[in-house]
Amino acid sequence: MTSETASKDCLGWAARDPSGVLSPYSFNRRAVGSDDVSITITHCGVCYADVIWTRNKHGDSKYPLVPGHEIVGIVKEVGHNVSRFKVGDHVGVGTYVNSCRDCKYCNDGLEVHCARSVYTFNAIDADGTITKGGYSSYIVVHERYCYKIANDYPLALAAPLLCAGITVYTPMMRHKMNQPGKSVGVIGLGGLGHMAVKFGKAFGLNVTVLSTSTSKKEEALSLLGADKFVVSSDLEQMKALGKSLDFIIDTASGDHPFDAYMSLLKVAGVYVLVGFPSEVKFSPASLNIGAKTVSGSVTGGTKDTQEMLEYCAAHKIYPQIETIPIENVNEALERLIKRDVKYRFVIDIQNSLK
Amino acid sequence: MTSETASKDCLGWAARDPSGVLSPYSFNRRAVGSDDVSITITHCGVCYADVIWTRNKHGDSKYPLVPGHEIVGIVKEVGHNVSRFKVGDHVGVGTYVNSCRDCKYCNDGLEVHCARSVYTFNAIDADGTITKGGYSSYIVVHERYCYKIANDYPLALAAPLLCAGITVYTPMMRHKMNQPGKSVGVIGLGGLGHMAVKFGKAFGLNVTVLSTSTSKKEEALSLLGADKFVVSSDLEQMKALGKSLDFIIDTASGDHPFDAYMSLLKVAGVYVLVGFPSEVKFSPASLNIGAKTVSGSVTGGTKDTQEMLEYCAAHKIYPQIETIPIENVNEALERLIKRDVKYRFVIDIQNSLK
Repeated sequence: MTSETASKDCLGWAARDPSGVLSPYSFNRRAVGSDDVSITITHCGVCYADVIWTRNKHGDSKYPLVPGHEIVGIVKEVGHNVSRFKVGDHVGVGTYVNSCRDCKYCNDGLEVHCARSVYTFNAIDADGTITKGGYSSYIVVHERYCYKIANDYPLALAAPLLCAGITVYTPMMRHKMNQPGKSVGVIGLGGLGHMAVKFGKAFGLNVTVLSTSTSKKEEALSLLGADKFVVSSDLEQMKALGKSLDFIIDTASGDHPFDAYMSLLKVAGVYVLVGFPSEVKFSPASLNIGAKTVSGSVTGGTKDTQEMLEYCAAHKIYPQIETIPIENVNEALERLIKRDVKYRFVIDIQNSLK
Repeated sequence: MTSETASKDCLGWAARDPSGVLSPYSFNRRAVGSDDVSITITHCGVCYADVIWTRNKHGDSKYPLVPGHEIVGIVKEVGHNVSRFKVGDHVGVGTYVNSCRDCKYCNDGLEVHCARSVYTFNAIDADGTITKGGYSSYIVVHERYCYKIANDYPLALAAPLLCAGITVYTPMMRHKMNQPGKSVGVIGLGGLGHMAVKFGKAFGLNVTVLSTSTSKKEEALSLLGADKFVVSSDLEQMKALGKSLDFIIDTASGDHPFDAYMSLLKVAGVYVLVGFPSEVKFSPASLNIGAKTVSGSVTGGTKDTQEMLEYCAAHKIYPQIETIPIENVNEALERLIKRDVKYRFVIDIQNSLK
């Protein structure tokens, strides 16, 4: 393909209405601009955001909607100004594909905070088109929003790093959770939570998984390497853990009480929320007594994302995934809603989207 | 007086039951120990905590209850090991009078976080006695919990620094709000809030007072020196202030919504809560989008408290007070409940408690 041809040659799967059911859909991508990279997508991770927007949960879905923002693949063409990538490189694209490139956040590599950042799907890009995500055969993006993936890092495993991985890595680094010997509690053991456990262990932390049931206990301890597993409804276990954690990272999007978890923090402990429950509610005493901090986060900037990918390659940190063909994506989204996944679905685009 | 005599020679005013009505009450203080300082109390500030415990709002009041934890006075006797103070020194005592002196918090001058810290009134001290506060003629405390007050700093004005002042100073310093040119919003303009405005201006901040009514506007701007005054119910004003503040310090103890205030913070903005509303409730989007932080605080350690007193003396930061005789204290507590005070009552113990 050259930059002149771009006529409905992109195969994808799209939701057509709030039923969220995905089916094959062909569409155009823009021609490869001078700063763009065109990527043959090999894999795309399945994030809960895909459920939210295919089903119009936020009321702003633009159909046909091609989801997917954990994109990995191989560079197939580069614009003439592109310096960081060449054909054949292994690359990734995450949750946003554009920003103003001129504000203080962009200048600091924190494009996620740019007022004009453009999400990878269902967003209106600078050229007025609606962005379409990674449940598709290829994508064209400005090189700034494209990340290098080490050649020896399996592409399928890299996919979940682009959203789940960076979403927990960013606040863990920002709040200095990478201090060996400190303790962290991880709430929720899904795509994000299991990555938090892996980063925590790589950082040398003492990791406690806080879960509502014992069903994931064995895997958390043996497969993911957590040091401790506590069922949050067990008051004795929770009491024993009181005031013992330096950090908590809360990846649960379901509603849950906060006070009980906050009581686990030491003085000056930090509770990071990355999930989106319907509300955050706690007693001021849970915050004020012990001078605790609750802090939020969403994904990360390009600088942190590239750094995280390199950290994972250097430390051999790999997500646990279940690979599926694109034909099974509707079933996978249903299973994701039921939390029936260990720990991230990754669509094998390369071998199934044809 | 010598350390051998201590028989009901301390005059005070105490609440006898949950009506909270205070009346004269004589009691003992402990004999002056080797590390103790005995202080003739000249003034005591009136804090909302005095209302809470005289009226048994937390269900743990021990009557007769002598409130008061914004204590200033003059040293009248020192134990033989006391090195930091001598008879005649101007001194203050704040919200706690004991701690273990051996834990990591005590070792860092953060006694407020010590698990064995003892509040200045209504608490059980290490010797088993119930502590009695500053609505009284003198107090005996270990020198560690006693602060030097500059001779040229008016004692009456120093009183509110020992709770209201340190309660806002500590988180402002901890969260690095002392960076000239940064912006802070102050919610609530009572004893704590008006000190936050004064510290903010001393730190070189751009200070916006956020209030539910315009009644304090003129004073906030002209007397306290705030740069801006915004009525929080005015949606236009609030919108204009959106994403503009580096910090918010929330001193309001009444219930109020949090999301609207959090929308005023810039990316990575910090919201410090020092008040005790019935609950803290906000949308996770208010926290996560823009990676904001909500942090709590209560009073400060001995190191910060001494530093704050010296800072106020050096920068001529003086609370606004209304001085009252002890006979008017019941009326003052009623007025405090109605928020009818600008901005802190201080009891003239020296001239009225006889």
